[in-house]
Order: sequence, then C-alpha cells, then structure tokens
Amino acid sequence: MNIVIVGLGVIGGSYALCLKELGYKNVYGIDIDKETLKKAEKMGIIKKGFMEEHEIIKEADLIILSVYPELIKEFINKNKHNFRNGVIITDTAGIKGLFIDEVIDMLPKGVDFVFGHPMAGREKRGIDFASKDVFRGANYLIIKNNRNKPESISLIKDLAYSIGFKNVKEISYSYHDEIIAFTSQLPHVLAVSLINSDEENRDTGKFIGDSYRDLTRIANINENLWSELFIGNKDNLLKSINNFERELNRLKNCIELGDRKGLKAEFKKSTMRRERL
Amino acid sequence: MNIVIVGLGVIGGSYALCLKELGYKNVYGIDIDKETLKKAEKMGIIKKGFMEEHEIIKEADLIILSVYPELIKEFINKNKHNFRNGVIITDTAGIKGLFIDEVIDMLPKGVDFVFGHPMAGREKRGIDFASKDVFRGANYLIIKNNRNKPESISLIKDLAYSIGFKNVKEISYSYHDEIIAFTSQLPHVLAVSLINSDEENRDTGKFIGDSYRDLTRIANINENLWSELFIGNKDNLLKSINNFERELNRLKNCIELGDRKGLKAEFKKSTMRRERL
Repeated sequence: MNIVIVGLGVIGGSYALCLKELGYKNVYGIDIDKETLKKAEKMGIIKKGFMEEHEIIKEADLIILSVYPELIKEFINKNKHNFRNGVIITDTAGIKGLFIDEVIDMLPKGVDFVFGHPMAGREKRGIDFASKDVFRGANYLIIKNNRNKPESISLIKDLAYSIGFKNVKEISYSYHDEIIAFTSQLPHVLAVSLINSDEENRDTGKFIGDSYRDLTRIANINENLWSELFIGNKDNLLKSINNFERELNRLKNCIELGDRKGLKAEFKKSTMRRERL
Repeated sequence: MNIVIVGLGVIGGSYALCLKELGYKNVYGIDIDKETLKKAEKMGIIKKGFMEEHEIIKEADLIILSVYPELIKEFINKNKHNFRNGVIITDTAGIKGLFIDEVIDMLPKGVDFVFGHPMAGREKRGIDFASKDVFRGANYLIIKNNRNKPESISLIKDLAYSIGFKNVKEISYSYHDEIIAFTSQLPHVLAVSLINSDEENRDTGKFIGDSYRDLTRIANINENLWSELFIGNKDNLLKSINNFERELNRLKNCIELGDRKGLKAEFKKSTMRRERL
C-alpha cells in the first residue's frame, strides 16, 4: 500500500512515525518546507519527500491530509484528476462544515473520502514535536458521508486503533462541529482570555497553583490554525460562548449578592458533571 | 516543640504527614470528626487527637490552623486566653482580608501569628487525600504583619521549604487577595461555568481532548470551602471576572466579524505570556 501524507507537522509527522512502527514501507510525504522533508527522510519515517503535489499522488492508495482546514478543498480541487481509482483519502481537520459538502461534490467517482478528526495535538507546532505518543489513549472521530464504502470506513477505523487511539466514534458533521465548538474551541477561547486578562507586568508566575497552570496550558496556541478553526466554525462557537456567558453570569450574580446557597448549587452540579466525565 | 494542627483535612493531614517525615514527635491534632482523628492516630502522624479546643492548646509552641477561612477568627477569639507566651500561629486560608485585621487586633501579647497560604490542594477533601506530595514544588505565600518577629517568619519559611514548597514569597495581604482572585479563584469560576454550560444529557465525554479535561479538572470543587472563598473575596474576584469578560468580548467580536488579524494578535499575546510563565 502506498501512503501519502500531506503536511508533516505534529499530526502528519506523528502519523508517519506510527506507520513506520506498524511496518508500512511505502510512506511518502508532501510538505511546503524543505527542512521538514529532509528531517522526515533522515528519521526514516518517509521513503521520500516531495515539495509539491507530485506524481506520487497518482500512485497513492491512501492519502492522509494533515493540513490546515482551508487547504483541503484546494488540495482536492487541484488534484481531482490525479487520484487513482480506489484511493481512500482522509483528513485530520478539527472542523468539517467549512468544506465537507463542497469537497464531496468535487470528488471524482472511485475516490472515497473518509473525514476524520484525531482529537489530539501538542501546543508546539512542526515535525520536531511529532511523537508516537500524540495519539495514545485519545478520541478519534469519523464523519461518515453517504458515498463512503464500509470497507473504507473500516480501514480508517482500524488504522486509528492501531496507531493508539482509544475510542473511535462515528458522528454526523453538524453534530461534530457543534460539540467540538464546546469541548475543544471554547476551552481555547477561555484559556486565551484568561491569560490575556492578567494585568501587564505583574509577577504572576510566583503566585500560581496548578489550576492556573492547567487552565492556561492551551493559551500557547498556533495562531494560524486556530484563527481558521474559530472563524470556520463561527456560529457553533458563538453559541457555546453564549452558553458559557450565561453560566458565568449566574456565578457572578451569586458572588455579588453573597448568595452562598446559589453558589453551592452550582458547585454541586459542576462536581457531579466532572465526576461523571 | 509541641505542634497542634487544627483541622486534619487534605492540607492539615498533609502537614502532619510531612512533620512526621521530618521527625517531629509531638504533633497533636484537633478535628470535629472522630473518624479523622482515629485515622490520623492509626497512621501515626499525630501523637493524639482531640475533638474540641482542648487543654493541648495551652501547651502548643506552634499551631497550624488548617480550617475554613471563616473559622479562624472564631478560633482565636475562643482561645485567646489559652495561648502560651511565645506561641507561633499560622494558617492556610486562601484569602486574608476577610479576617486578618480583626485577628491581629484580637491577639494577646506574646502570640505571633504568621499568616500563610500554601498554594496547593486536591480536588478531593478529607484526610484520605492527604499526602506528602501535596506541597511538592508548589508556591507558598507569607503575609507579614508589623507585629511579626523575624524569627517567627524564619521558622514558618523554613518549615515551608522543608515540607516541599519550592518558592516562598512574602506579600501584603491586599496584594495577596487581589492576585489570588486572578490566579486561583477566577480559574475555578471558569471551570465551573464551562462544565455547567454543557447541554444536558449530551455524551460529551466521547468528544473531548486534553483541553476539556484540563480545564474542567477543578470543576470538581468543595462547595463549602469555595463559596466562602469567593464571597469572602468578592470585590477582588468581581474585578478579575470583569477583566476576563473584557478579553472574552474582544475574542468574541473578532469571531463575529471574521477578524483573523485581530484573533492572531490575541493568540500571539497569549502564547507569549504562557511561554514566559
């Protein structure tokens, strides 16, 4: 099987590492960064790297698109005449509504695109932070469409389990984007707002406990990727922010009024929900 | 040296464990819960436990008050005639403004109260979750007052380092309560609001990554303690919430307007701040 990974960042690089571990020999990489390709070749996790969409696309049995969400449509459009019959394509984008319908419409017959979302990553970007542990124990989501063949779904699912994911779940794209706005995007919004709301030039670091450390870890954020993700899933994210603000105001009112009973009720609810998680 | 720990929860219990490790023999415990005292005696971390403020107070050279903030004033008031000359008292409360002035006024001559804040804890409450690791690597704050003797400060400081704290810092009580509202209380407000803003009965757990897990860990919260802490530090906390809301609105506006440049600027700021931490 010829596998082509497009984009050798943390996610694409980690795929390559895992595929090597699994014994796949014919893994190729495409990246816009020459250094990245050199590194990947040197690490022996790709057989060969290419700078552009190359002839190699024509020989791919499986293409893993680990590029920014906005590049997926472009990639499919550029290469729609290059795909061999029977190829399976998958992606790793954190949002789907932005492109899924158009991409499906664009696909030639004989090309099966199984949209996927590995719920994993690192704060740092680039192949240097790729690792076999990135996917370990994480959740993987498959966003099925009605053109998918069962055997393609199985292949992507099996691959996810074999590279370390713990749970693989199928989900519609509208539910995916709605719930991801809450579980992944909203936490990033909060972390960024929290750390940015600190007063300038305060020696905050000396007065923190684990809570501040935990809540700001993801404030270290890839600005190119996350601005795409936020704006590409705008309506769902704004809805999540509004729900959050409703709860924040509830707590704020209790604090203003000195309403101890009200606060305790909120804390009991949050504790119960966290324990159930 | 006779040491009396009042309140054998996670913090008091962890003090007892650490003092045992350091070789202190005459450590006594006071708690309202009989079972807790039994456990502590059985674990050998206290020499003897008492249910009420007991004669043992009169023999104490060091008293560690690890009780809820609102009980500190009460304890001092009840026992002001029981303290021996030269006793050093310290506390572990997460806020100080609520009681510090009144407590200082109440103290008999010859009693030195060094207010302290171990910035450590566990989500779970009670002696079962006490551990020698609770304080390991954490920050410890000393809130000096003008009646403190240098040797009392030194004793509390040395004790903090010997039980595992990494940094000990002296700080005024007004700055303490202001910065703690931001670094500790605000993260708890956010975690509770985040998890409580989830839709009812959604199978959220299957769609989460590390970010949601990290940001909701402290939503598992002791409702009695934290309602006291929030309401007892109301003005500072409301100020921190307002600052946070200002930043949240900034992000929200960028998302609404599709302002990618604005978002990237916020992300760069948060990344820089997080890396500096």
